[in-house]
Amino acid sequence: MPRIEVGGTPPYTVTVESGALTRAGMPQTRVALIVDAGLPAEWVELAQRAFHPELTIDVPSGDACKTLDVLGTVLSRLAAANLPRDGAVIGLGGGATTDLAGFAAASYLRGVAYYSVPTTLLGMVDAAVGGKTGINLPEGKNLVGAFWPPRAVWCDPQVLGSLPPAVFREGAAEAYKHGLISDPTLLGRVLSPDFRPDHAGFEATLADAIAVKAGVVTRDLTEQGERAYLNFGHTLAHAIEAVTHHGVSHGDAVGYGMHYAALLSRELGGTDLSAHTRRFLDWQRPKALPALEFGALSAYMARDKKADSQGVRFVLLHGLARPYLARVPEATLSSVFDLWRSDVSSPVPK
Amino acid sequence: MPRIEVGGTPPYTVTVESGALTRAGMPQTRVALIVDAGLPAEWVELAQRAFHPELTIDVPSGDACKTLDVLGTVLSRLAAANLPRDGAVIGLGGGATTDLAGFAAASYLRGVAYYSVPTTLLGMVDAAVGGKTGINLPEGKNLVGAFWPPRAVWCDPQVLGSLPPAVFREGAAEAYKHGLISDPTLLGRVLSPDFRPDHAGFEATLADAIAVKAGVVTRDLTEQGERAYLNFGHTLAHAIEAVTHHGVSHGDAVGYGMHYAALLSRELGGTDLSAHTRRFLDWQRPKALPALEFGALSAYMARDKKADSQGVRFVLLHGLARPYLARVPEATLSSVFDLWRSDVSSPVPK
Repeated sequence: MPRIEVGGTPPYTVTVESGALTRAGMPQTRVALIVDAGLPAEWVELAQRAFHPELTIDVPSGDACKTLDVLGTVLSRLAAANLPRDGAVIGLGGGATTDLAGFAAASYLRGVAYYSVPTTLLGMVDAAVGGKTGINLPEGKNLVGAFWPPRAVWCDPQVLGSLPPAVFREGAAEAYKHGLISDPTLLGRVLSPDFRPDHAGFEATLADAIAVKAGVVTRDLTEQGERAYLNFGHTLAHAIEAVTHHGVSHGDAVGYGMHYAALLSRELGGTDLSAHTRRFLDWQRPKALPALEFGALSAYMARDKKADSQGVRFVLLHGLARPYLARVPEATLSSVFDLWRSDVSSPVPK
Repeated sequence: MPRIEVGGTPPYTVTVESGALTRAGMPQTRVALIVDAGLPAEWVELAQRAFHPELTIDVPSGDACKTLDVLGTVLSRLAAANLPRDGAVIGLGGGATTDLAGFAAASYLRGVAYYSVPTTLLGMVDAAVGGKTGINLPEGKNLVGAFWPPRAVWCDPQVLGSLPPAVFREGAAEAYKHGLISDPTLLGRVLSPDFRPDHAGFEATLADAIAVKAGVVTRDLTEQGERAYLNFGHTLAHAIEAVTHHGVSHGDAVGYGMHYAALLSRELGGTDLSAHTRRFLDWQRPKALPALEFGALSAYMARDKKADSQGVRFVLLHGLARPYLARVPEATLSSVFDLWRSDVSSPVPK
């Protein structure tokens, strides 16, 4: 059973194992469970049997839960139940649910223990590790939040078997990204027909994809340096999500965004990796994009959290597993955008 | 010029000095100023000349700003201005303003630099030091927030000269509390006629009152131990504020709450310090209390952040500067409440 250690104060363990939820436990006795309302009842019941929460709070599926309104509702429920300082909050759901639940845990009573049980591939590979929690603003995604690492993360591949195939493929974007920025063996493994929850090798590939992020965040807990590399493909992705009002899912947007970042990397003199990102898109079959204006996307990109007073920095690749940060001139962003736009508009084989 | 060092990561300095604001500065170039809308214009202009904020955000005076709604408005303004990750937020106002501004800084982009310029005695002695930030919920005070220490604090006693006398006396409660729990020399100094902003000795007394808190939080950054002692008088105070919907100010409520805690301490075998807390009330002349039911207050006290799974803990005193934490039986809380109620209902000399 793969167990991945993540550094921090305190460090924590990510368990990747079929049936992980049935064996999960924690020292806190008074706990609240925050649940994606769209989850199959069997998974909620399994979690309730494992954790004995004194209250279960349903929140809307996907980014609809990452609002100040939903946060306020959750915090008031915790307060009305008198959840104490030595209690715990558990997030059960996809990355949006665990982002919200983690931020509620971070801010309720200025912080109570948080545990994460991601139920999507995206949530397991990305959101559950690293301690980033938060919500969106009308002005953009993830603009509000806290660094609040979980005390433990349980990833049960069985739960992924019940995901719609498109949601599973969407979530593979972060695993593929980890291949591009750090572990190229993942590129072939993610696109292999064996990358499915019921296959024997799946746990190991999933664990290796999680381990890339665990390694990065252990070395850089608060995104002073290499942690920024995890945002490969995300600058455009967040802008796409914002201008489409989340009409494009995060994983699909990252699929598109990685291709843009690969084209930018090539333009700035790096190895051409766009065949990889194009191959991923062909495999992922993301939702088709609506008409997108560069100007609108550019305004959102300028607001990216990686921006500082000198402008937006992009994560680019010199080559496989060789990420770097660079400021890119607006003219380059614009011309590569046109290239990317025509590329992702061409028919994707179904 | 007194400068008080507060430990932490990073440590920071509290400057107590007439004219501190005119000499304040910071490395960040892009900053937002969050201002109590009730402040005299001259102080806002002084801060604008000192910090050159690119936006100034007015928030309602007092606890009316400590809501999720106001927080959301402030965060959206910061995002709309594209305040970057290496920007800064400055809070200018009383303890409520700096609590809100600090939490906005803590949660915007998962945390940007925060600077505090308290403009009330309460804000200088209590809220500005220690890194507690936050807002209220309908369910109670300060139930949401973060530990987010400022990078620097500037306390300019001149600003206190423009405070209404009742607001000044209200704010003395925290300074007096620091006398009770740690530095008994403050008891006489706070009640002395010389304790006024235009008196030569004022800066030193103010600095000594701040230094008590600075010492405690340096030794205990996240309230694992002795920091809880700073809550002397606060368990009942927060309940009074909640049941009166902030009809009683924080400082006045702490004045009342200290007297209750002194009576409880005596009841549990400590030195009788209630003459001190009564003397403070006589000096402070807090707003008269409405009718208060023990049951309603008790429900709020049970929700106190110091509560854990075993119930509410009170900060009590064995004697001067000898605080401890104790669970107090409900029957004792109730009988001492009756005693306190009749005591604080007796006429206070004007």
